[in-house]
Amino acid sequence: MTLKLYFAPGACSFVPHTLLETAGADFEPALVKLHKGENLTPEYKAINPRGQVPVLVDGDQVITQIVAIVNHLDQKFPDAGFLPRDPLARTRVLETLAWMNNTVHPTFTHVFMPHKFSDDAQAQAAVKTHGAKLYGGMLAELEAMAVQAGAGFLGGERFGPLDAYALTLLRWGGFAGYDPQGYPALWALVQRVAALPGVARAIERERLQLNVYKA
Amino acid sequence: MTLKLYFAPGACSFVPHTLLETAGADFEPALVKLHKGENLTPEYKAINPRGQVPVLVDGDQVITQIVAIVNHLDQKFPDAGFLPRDPLARTRVLETLAWMNNTVHPTFTHVFMPHKFSDDAQAQAAVKTHGAKLYGGMLAELEAMAVQAGAGFLGGERFGPLDAYALTLLRWGGFAGYDPQGYPALWALVQRVAALPGVARAIERERLQLNVYKA
Ligand SMILES: N[C@@H](CCC(=O)N[C@@H](CS)C(=O)NCC(=O)O)C(=O)O
Ligand SMILES: N[C@@H](CCC(=O)N[C@@H](CS)C(=O)NCC(=O)O)C(=O)O
Repeated sequence: MTLKLYFAPGACSFVPHTLLETAGADFEPALVKLHKGENLTPEYKAINPRGQVPVLVDGDQVITQIVAIVNHLDQKFPDAGFLPRDPLARTRVLETLAWMNNTVHPTFTHVFMPHKFSDDAQAQAAVKTHGAKLYGGMLAELEAMAVQAGAGFLGGERFGPLDAYALTLLRWGGFAGYDPQGYPALWALVQRVAALPGVARAIERERLQLNVYKA
Repeated sequence: MTLKLYFAPGACSFVPHTLLETAGADFEPALVKLHKGENLTPEYKAINPRGQVPVLVDGDQVITQIVAIVNHLDQKFPDAGFLPRDPLARTRVLETLAWMNNTVHPTFTHVFMPHKFSDDAQAQAAVKTHGAKLYGGMLAELEAMAVQAGAGFLGGERFGPLDAYALTLLRWGGFAGYDPQGYPALWALVQRVAALPGVARAIERERLQLNVYKA
């Protein structure tokens, strides 16, 4: 076995986790407990100095960053069709993947880990409130994409990284105060995605509850 | 002429701007004055609802997100070699591009546009100070990459998006209180990159000063 994925339950590492399962890859899942700071130990930092998940180890290569890992898995498992072959469709998927990764995801980080942006408690509270507000607008953008996808997936006819990321982002929305049922097309897509065998296996290993919203 | 780039002087749109110039592309440069809020007008939002640069228009396609635009230009101008053909090298370039785009760039946004993270003046000041501190560590990471690149470029033997982004990020460092001369390998790389004909044309059009640091 040469593939190993460092992941944390419910974290963004869910994206490569589902791709590996969907491809039927033989890989070793390595659970990192973020709430116990296992990502900040010298052992883990020797693997990823930035102290984050996901990390994909492929033989002697250690690959970080969701965007790069997705590219790597797409190259490694071409039959899975994780990224479209058509050049323009590929650009479009990367456009949404990049936006999820550089905008939506970091906005949630302001809600979930406000201490990353200031040491001051009041500033942390302000940043958290502001981030939670912005996050609602972003979920609305995702809802519009889900409407457009109809019975298909966000990247086209096949399941791919956008769908796994959307599931994660909508799930996080519950922690930010947003009821997933307020985004009916997105919620339907996410539930459909969750039922795919590979995704279901990742959900089971991470012991995820899809709807974490509390009224 | 079917290509059009919406850009703002000194902004991250510098990355695709240099790629277009380097490829010798026939394109229409459209300057957007961010400080005058031209990116938030109804006209501009009809082009990019998210109100940001860069936007690349290619015929009837409107493409946002640096990562996607880079992919698109790499496909359109294959001879320019903007992204490596070798699968692993390509993954490595995307890894650094994604990190610049989702971590370094947003960290600077906290310094330069703290109002994006809170409406409260004190929280804005806190976020700005914190971001500026983190930014120094990221410039140190970039310096290590420049050391490793030696006489080459960050993505290998040819100029590419990583080099243009590094130039932008080091230049922004000056606004965050970091003297570029404190990062000798990076500063040497950036000056070498700035002298490439395509990059020099983009710098001239944007009227950029490379070193904006004030002691
Ligand atoms: N830019 C990284 C972001 C990775 C990231 O944000 N990971 C989070 C979990 S969702 C993490 O490890 N957080 C722990 C920490 O930063 O302390 C990527 O795209 O892979
Ligand atoms: N995620 C976008 C970020 C684009 C971005 O941050 N653009 C900035 C300039 S560097 C901008 O337009 N800022 C104006 C604003 O956000 O109001 C990308 O990768 O293209």
